[in-house]
Amino acid sequence: MSGRSAGGRPSQRADARRNATRITEAARTTFASQGPEASLIEIARTAGVGSATLYRHFPTREALLAAVYQQQIEELAAGARTELTESASPWEALVTWLHAVAFHLATHRGLKGLLISRYEDQAELFTQCRRTLCEAATELLTAAQDCGAVRRDVDAYRMLKMVSAVVLANEQSGDDDEIDLLLGLVIDGLRRHDDPRSEAATP
Amino acid sequence: MSGRSAGGRPSQRADARRNATRITEAARTTFASQGPEASLIEIARTAGVGSATLYRHFPTREALLAAVYQQQIEELAAGARTELTESASPWEALVTWLHAVAFHLATHRGLKGLLISRYEDQAELFTQCRRTLCEAATELLTAAQDCGAVRRDVDAYRMLKMVSAVVLANEQSGDDDEIDLLLGLVIDGLRRHDDPRSEAATP
Repeated sequence: MSGRSAGGRPSQRADARRNATRITEAARTTFASQGPEASLIEIARTAGVGSATLYRHFPTREALLAAVYQQQIEELAAGARTELTESASPWEALVTWLHAVAFHLATHRGLKGLLISRYEDQAELFTQCRRTLCEAATELLTAAQDCGAVRRDVDAYRMLKMVSAVVLANEQSGDDDEIDLLLGLVIDGLRRHDDPRSEAATP
Repeated sequence: MSGRSAGGRPSQRADARRNATRITEAARTTFASQGPEASLIEIARTAGVGSATLYRHFPTREALLAAVYQQQIEELAAGARTELTESASPWEALVTWLHAVAFHLATHRGLKGLLISRYEDQAELFTQCRRTLCEAATELLTAAQDCGAVRRDVDAYRMLKMVSAVVLANEQSGDDDEIDLLLGLVIDGLRRHDDPRSEAATP
């Protein structure tokens, strides 16, 4: 399959991609400030496209909300790679990123909840997003394990589950400091400690 | 105030207490097997008391469900003291008890959820139960901290919150092995590790 056969000249398709991104970004800001019932016409206007263009890319409000959710997850995953490059050590990269994940989950639970409660058939979106996040987490975790900072018997899936557990436990209070504190406890649980006395004490 | 002035002779009051306990125990078994809509008449029969006695002690189904919930929490709290006496070390007592708390939460979430969703004004019951559990947890935690097994910067409230977080995160799967595994991670996070290298690596 050549790119052209998919429809339109390359520059047209690049334009379309740019528009889609612009719309998703406008939607993100607008949904964040005005809630999920924000006017789609206003989103189109903010994105600098016509309503027809918005509806061509996102035929329903659900599609637009799902795109916003997916974009956030992809950014979060991309952040893992950035941390790994820029942090002083894989351990620091992991710690920083896990706090970012917790912050994301605490801030955007509403959107996920909305997608689950209002729309059916988002299973594929969530599976895809979970995979994206797990891949990013695995990369960071493996690096931290390889340098001896993190125990080997934890996988990325469980590590993320613990982060999500901490956020869930603080859902009602929404207290960021408390989330950070409990997450610190989880992170300490991930560390590799070579203390044979403690190992022996584990039942 | 003498005991007698509260109404009835001491033996009558002792009888009443015994009846109340017998009813709560029968209710616990019956609710567990038949759900919260189980026949109150059958519960009275199982307890070996008449319906009038049941209603005198528990005028509403809500009161009986609340009593069952409170009894479970009190048993769990009493279990902390038993562990502390019978375990090989305060650390082992703490670990065993935290697993028991997780098991309790995973098994009885339904009852708490029901009390919250169906009945209002249970705030006092939950506050009281949380306090009971926190006191028991504090006793175990302090003993484990005093013998140097557990870090000093964790309090009982947060420790219990983490247990509850683990259970919440596995609510849909209800997988006990997974709960144990994640709880193990939390428990490792509680341990006191004197590894200066790791301390320094914490951002």
